[in-house]
Amino acid sequence: MCKAVHETRAHFREQIPGIVDRIVGTCHDGKCFEHIDAELIPSRETIIETVHRLRELLFPGYFSEENLDKTNMKYHIGRSVDALFDTLSVQISRSLRHECFRYDQPCVECVGLGHERAMRFLESIPAIRQVLATDVRAAYEGDPAAESYDEIVFSYPGIFAIMVYRAAHRLFEQQVPLLPRIMTEYAHSITGIDIHPGATIGENFFIDHGTGVVIGETSEIGDRVRLYQGVTLGALSLPKGAGDRLKGKKRHPTIEDDVIIYAGATILGGKTTIGARSVIGGNVWITQSVPSDTKVFLEAPRLVYKQSGTE
Amino acid sequence: MCKAVHETRAHFREQIPGIVDRIVGTCHDGKCFEHIDAELIPSRETIIETVHRLRELLFPGYFSEENLDKTNMKYHIGRSVDALFDTLSVQISRSLRHECFRYDQPCVECVGLGHERAMRFLESIPAIRQVLATDVRAAYEGDPAAESYDEIVFSYPGIFAIMVYRAAHRLFEQQVPLLPRIMTEYAHSITGIDIHPGATIGENFFIDHGTGVVIGETSEIGDRVRLYQGVTLGALSLPKGAGDRLKGKKRHPTIEDDVIIYAGATILGGKTTIGARSVIGGNVWITQSVPSDTKVFLEAPRLVYKQSGTE
Amino acid sequence: MCKAVHETRAHFREQIPGIVDRIVGTCHDGKCFEHIDAELIPSRETIIETVHRLRELLFPGYFSEENLDKTNMKYHIGRSVDALFDTLSVQISRSLRHECFRYDQPCVECVGLGHERAMRFLESIPAIRQVLATDVRAAYEGDPAAESYDEIVFSYPGIFAIMVYRAAHRLFEQQVPLLPRIMTEYAHSITGIDIHPGATIGENFFIDHGTGVVIGETSEIGDRVRLYQGVTLGALSLPKGAGDRLKGKKRHPTIEDDVIIYAGATILGGKTTIGARSVIGGNVWITQSVPSDTKVFLEAPRLVYKQSGTE
Repeated sequence: MCKAVHETRAHFREQIPGIVDRIVGTCHDGKCFEHIDAELIPSRETIIETVHRLRELLFPGYFSEENLDKTNMKYHIGRSVDALFDTLSVQISRSLRHECFRYDQPCVECVGLGHERAMRFLESIPAIRQVLATDVRAAYEGDPAAESYDEIVFSYPGIFAIMVYRAAHRLFEQQVPLLPRIMTEYAHSITGIDIHPGATIGENFFIDHGTGVVIGETSEIGDRVRLYQGVTLGALSLPKGAGDRLKGKKRHPTIEDDVIIYAGATILGGKTTIGARSVIGGNVWITQSVPSDTKVFLEAPRLVYKQSGTE
Repeated sequence: MCKAVHETRAHFREQIPGIVDRIVGTCHDGKCFEHIDAELIPSRETIIETVHRLRELLFPGYFSEENLDKTNMKYHIGRSVDALFDTLSVQISRSLRHECFRYDQPCVECVGLGHERAMRFLESIPAIRQVLATDVRAAYEGDPAAESYDEIVFSYPGIFAIMVYRAAHRLFEQQVPLLPRIMTEYAHSITGIDIHPGATIGENFFIDHGTGVVIGETSEIGDRVRLYQGVTLGALSLPKGAGDRLKGKKRHPTIEDDVIIYAGATILGGKTTIGARSVIGGNVWITQSVPSDTKVFLEAPRLVYKQSGTE
Repeated sequence: MCKAVHETRAHFREQIPGIVDRIVGTCHDGKCFEHIDAELIPSRETIIETVHRLRELLFPGYFSEENLDKTNMKYHIGRSVDALFDTLSVQISRSLRHECFRYDQPCVECVGLGHERAMRFLESIPAIRQVLATDVRAAYEGDPAAESYDEIVFSYPGIFAIMVYRAAHRLFEQQVPLLPRIMTEYAHSITGIDIHPGATIGENFFIDHGTGVVIGETSEIGDRVRLYQGVTLGALSLPKGAGDRLKGKKRHPTIEDDVIIYAGATILGGKTTIGARSVIGGNVWITQSVPSDTKVFLEAPRLVYKQSGTE
């Protein structure tokens, strides 16, 4: 049998070159997607590593094997900032160059711009740390199951998603292409929480449980807002083919300060505003604005109760 | 104290052999699950690596560190196809052998069958690339937040889930056990999108956001269909113990061409068909067929509005 | 250009020390989170490795590259138990010490306690294996798409989430801080299933699909219970600031034996009990107890059907 197996294997192997040719030739009509003859592209893997390195800077001492103390902290952070500057510069300039290439524009300053934007991003780290601290406090106050601040930093998916969003949003504001979305979609894959880097979100933001949360590109969220799992801040349905026309328009709702939105609620539309201090009940579906200080909930749906065996 | 600690540790260590014996002995009654005295089994880790290598073939140049151009592309793809043939052959023949072993059947041709089915799978790669290209276009047209085709390929979870499904479905059609489901459950864990490899799905398929989507084993989906997060294409509830009897029966719905299904909608049952060009609104719950060109939505639920402080 | 690029890079690099100083100084007011001058902390990465090593013990032979047989199984399991004892002891004593440090208490026995609790955990592995076996059987009986027990062990997200929960719950019962939650949140990130380690869950537990399931800290679940995706066992809304007061109180429902809860149902409140053998329909929202042997479902919501073009 050994020989027979060897022969069929050899027989099949002979077909490989033909298959390779067919794969290479698949897209000669330009109808499928490949990325060749292009400048170096941003690396999804490096961007994910960057997210983790960034986390070590945003919450120093929580996610490193070394013990940080007041003496070595500066070296540790210094080394991280230094490394981040280099990787981020490269990834940003690759993203910029990638766009130039796609749109046939010259790309004379991509390297310099990479340095500049990476630097501007690094400068914003203290501010990101401070707003993230308000998010951790909001989680502690909002969740009776939270044992300690440290448990939240170590394990809450909402904090991870918000952290990645806050960093990605800074790059989005600087008009860096591709990177911000790759970052937030990585957080989405880890947490089930899908925050578009374009959204605007205030301080003390808490997402509990989080799986299924969607926060669309043009959403605006105030301070001290709390969301539960499965909440959607989305766009109204769009007519077919309207996709292009709507790009960049405000399509997602505005949530004012101190609003609470319970699990599974759906709030749609760029003109929909939920007024300050309002509470949206679970599973509520809203496409119109709600005034301040209002509670909205579903009229208790009629439930049908049946004894078993009576079916 | 050092000595005391050392002693308790030694004291505890002495108990390990007893624990090991009890763990080894747990299943002597055959009531728990272990996989011993078996042929080599498929490796979940290798299958996950295979998914990533496959992605490099399906979207050449997007996910590799090297720069692809017209000259080196053939070498790059050649090397990948070659490596894939070997790993896939091994994993397929292990899956087949595993089944033989479980059902006490002889397994004389498992190696040859592994080669044959791996080869047939590789031959289908050009076709998979072409249908995936229609999926990427559908995403661009369906999502105003999409900046470019590249952003979609790099970061959209829907594209990753559909890609893995399309590959796994080819193996499912060839009756390869275990592998297809391990592949789609990996995509499920990354994206929150649960597509059974047995489902049938047409071209230009777009899933937006995706978390919570479930597409059951016997679902049939036409061309140009669009789904949002939390959509379930599921089975009707089954009486206890009916599990075995229903295996293989059509239990999940049929969705015809050009249907749109909004977030959170649930469509159940093997006799349920959603007619072409119909639109199913968010959160709608359907267990009966819907004719073509129909919009179905929830009658606006009565919401209760309350001023705060009036509770 | 080369020189210019080099110069801008050098120019930017000069700003790094200033940024590092500002990052180090961000938290001098104690308003953000860092973890310095602390004892060694538990390592999230090591805990995740522990989960995977534990899986090899709980389902021997499924997730290892080596072929297990009756001869080598004991060596394999012995080596794993040995290694687990060491890593778990260290992580547990770090968690305990971390708490002592936070609350300014002396930590004289943390190392010994680490050994003791790790040992007690290892002793419970045979019991965990046996109850997990009932969970695998429940999945096979509850899901017509299940091809074999092996497919379930290899690929079902529900089994992974329940396995991690069952292990984490044992550590939670021993009052180990941080670790249990890091473990279950890791499973949450992989499966979309969020089970708090404090919940109590009986035998033969099956979660199908699972994405979006939330099982709160004080939930109690009987034997032979089946849940589908998106089911929430949660707490009633709490008044602002009540978080602290409610810590430790029973806030989540009780589900008795043989209950089935379909997709998207939400059951809230610590006084809510779903009686034995009852069935809760999809999307039902319940905040009151349901007697035994009862089916509860939504009154078919009025759907609106519209021909297209009549809008």
